[in-house]
Amino acid sequence: MYTIGIIGATGHTGYVLDGVRGRSDLKIVGVSPGSDGETVETLLQRVREACPEVRQYGEHEDLLDDAEPDIVAVAPYFGDIASIAKEVLSRDIHAFVEKPLATRLDDLETLRSTYEASEGRLAAMLGIRYNPAFRTAATRVHEGAIGEVRLVNARKSYKLGRRGEPYLERETYGGTIPWVGIHAIDWINWVADDPFRAVTAHHTTAANRDHGSLETTAVLQFELGNDVLASASVDYLRPETAPTHGDDFLRVVGTEGVIRADRHGTYLIDDAAGGQRELPLGSSQHPFEDFVDAMDGTSDPLVTADASFEATRAALLARQAADEQRRIEW
Amino acid sequence: MYTIGIIGATGHTGYVLDGVRGRSDLKIVGVSPGSDGETVETLLQRVREACPEVRQYGEHEDLLDDAEPDIVAVAPYFGDIASIAKEVLSRDIHAFVEKPLATRLDDLETLRSTYEASEGRLAAMLGIRYNPAFRTAATRVHEGAIGEVRLVNARKSYKLGRRGEPYLERETYGGTIPWVGIHAIDWINWVADDPFRAVTAHHTTAANRDHGSLETTAVLQFELGNDVLASASVDYLRPETAPTHGDDFLRVVGTEGVIRADRHGTYLIDDAAGGQRELPLGSSQHPFEDFVDAMDGTSDPLVTADASFEATRAALLARQAADEQRRIEW
Repeated sequence: MYTIGIIGATGHTGYVLDGVRGRSDLKIVGVSPGSDGETVETLLQRVREACPEVRQYGEHEDLLDDAEPDIVAVAPYFGDIASIAKEVLSRDIHAFVEKPLATRLDDLETLRSTYEASEGRLAAMLGIRYNPAFRTAATRVHEGAIGEVRLVNARKSYKLGRRGEPYLERETYGGTIPWVGIHAIDWINWVADDPFRAVTAHHTTAANRDHGSLETTAVLQFELGNDVLASASVDYLRPETAPTHGDDFLRVVGTEGVIRADRHGTYLIDDAAGGQRELPLGSSQHPFEDFVDAMDGTSDPLVTADASFEATRAALLARQAADEQRRIEW
Repeated sequence: MYTIGIIGATGHTGYVLDGVRGRSDLKIVGVSPGSDGETVETLLQRVREACPEVRQYGEHEDLLDDAEPDIVAVAPYFGDIASIAKEVLSRDIHAFVEKPLATRLDDLETLRSTYEASEGRLAAMLGIRYNPAFRTAATRVHEGAIGEVRLVNARKSYKLGRRGEPYLERETYGGTIPWVGIHAIDWINWVADDPFRAVTAHHTTAANRDHGSLETTAVLQFELGNDVLASASVDYLRPETAPTHGDDFLRVVGTEGVIRADRHGTYLIDDAAGGQRELPLGSSQHPFEDFVDAMDGTSDPLVTADASFEATRAALLARQAADEQRRIEW
């Protein structure tokens, strides 16, 4: 039996709710806000359906002190993620953390040090890795289906809708590259064997429909080791009438083939078999369950701590490259 | 009746052959090589099927002096395009020119001056504008179907095959960004209302299967006026077994919708009608016929001289940005 706390109600707490459903060994014992102004009532109502005995705490410190959970999901306003994750890990509690792990590089470094000294495990909520289309693409790339990876193109496109206060200021939001673009960055890091070496990027708040400093569009360009290139496009301009919230896309170009994944499926063209074909997709998995099941250390979760730190670091360097209009090296 | 000369047999001379077919007012009168080492026998054989009286010239100057054509198609090795186009225009002959118009910026400037002083018209062979899927996308964007353009993503992916000598050296080839990427750059310039302001880019020769200095992959990122962003991905790694030579793709994101074009068709999602729908495509047209039919000045061809110069200039600046690893402003 693992006991679970949830701090904050802003991010993907649904991963935790989905993960505990039907698992008698997982129990949410406490919920608290993570940021000033955050309300947890709606979240609490949903948690009670699965865990009627859950307690509400006014301060996250009280949750940690009193409930002493084995695992904490960290999902406050994005600017508060790093400091709360640090508190969690410094108590040797496992941390399932909203992405980005931090909205500032210095906070990320501090969190990394805390993590390395902690017995707690950590994963960021990079949940799209669990989407069967994207996971199948990555698995096939890792199995060598397209030879050596040479080029990666990724796209994130979301509906803007009407976003709440935390999204309107850099201080609380962190920026569109760290919040949305990080998925595309993570896929690049996931499928390429070689590490990030440098980034150039641009972003703009134009046409953001009174969403403060929220950036509506961004383009990113990465150089990786071994002359591998990668690009990502990010926008919040997906029409509200579109059939899905997101329009995710990944294209991996190798020396022996090209693989694409989108919301419809996964497609491979290679020299070996000829022509283009749709690939059968693997089964889906809950991000939180995977994190919990790998927590004993006998296996790696799909989203490792290293990948979580690297995606966050790359996103923050890309944001800086866009802010400062210059190429930034690792 | 217009008489036509063809100088060089390296580029898209097929556009001219397709354009004269069935047109009794267009007659190819002379063919010559444009570069040292170029052979025109195969081309000449095909030209004779349509124009049996065509004459072969050993030097392009002789063709110009002797045949005095009204129009010349310029298609030598890419490093020789600018100087031959300049000779053509300086005689007030209309020039239908392989892209890029030049492989060096100084040659491009010289050609531009010559063009401005000439009575000859000019268009680059940016033939994919005539593909119904891409043309329909651009037309709809220009009609306001997606509101104000905010972001453009473009992709060119080609099979490498086994390329001849002119492709193996920068001197004769010019580079993959000017030769292949220029189409993606041209589409961006075509659909966006705002001019190019700056570019960052990368390219690499990795995995080029003994193709000298030919770059196999490139990524490009443009800032346009009014905070419009654009990106392009270019590669030669399309598997030889793929159903088509190219995998062209264009995505234009506006304030009121998103439009996509690829080899399958054109797709629009907008707020007005809701959902995604495939658009009916306009009819196709021959690039050379359009050039000829607009030559009297009563209408603009789809590929204007301005667009030809701007696409070439942007491609050469992007190549420079990639060579020098720095952001280049207009």
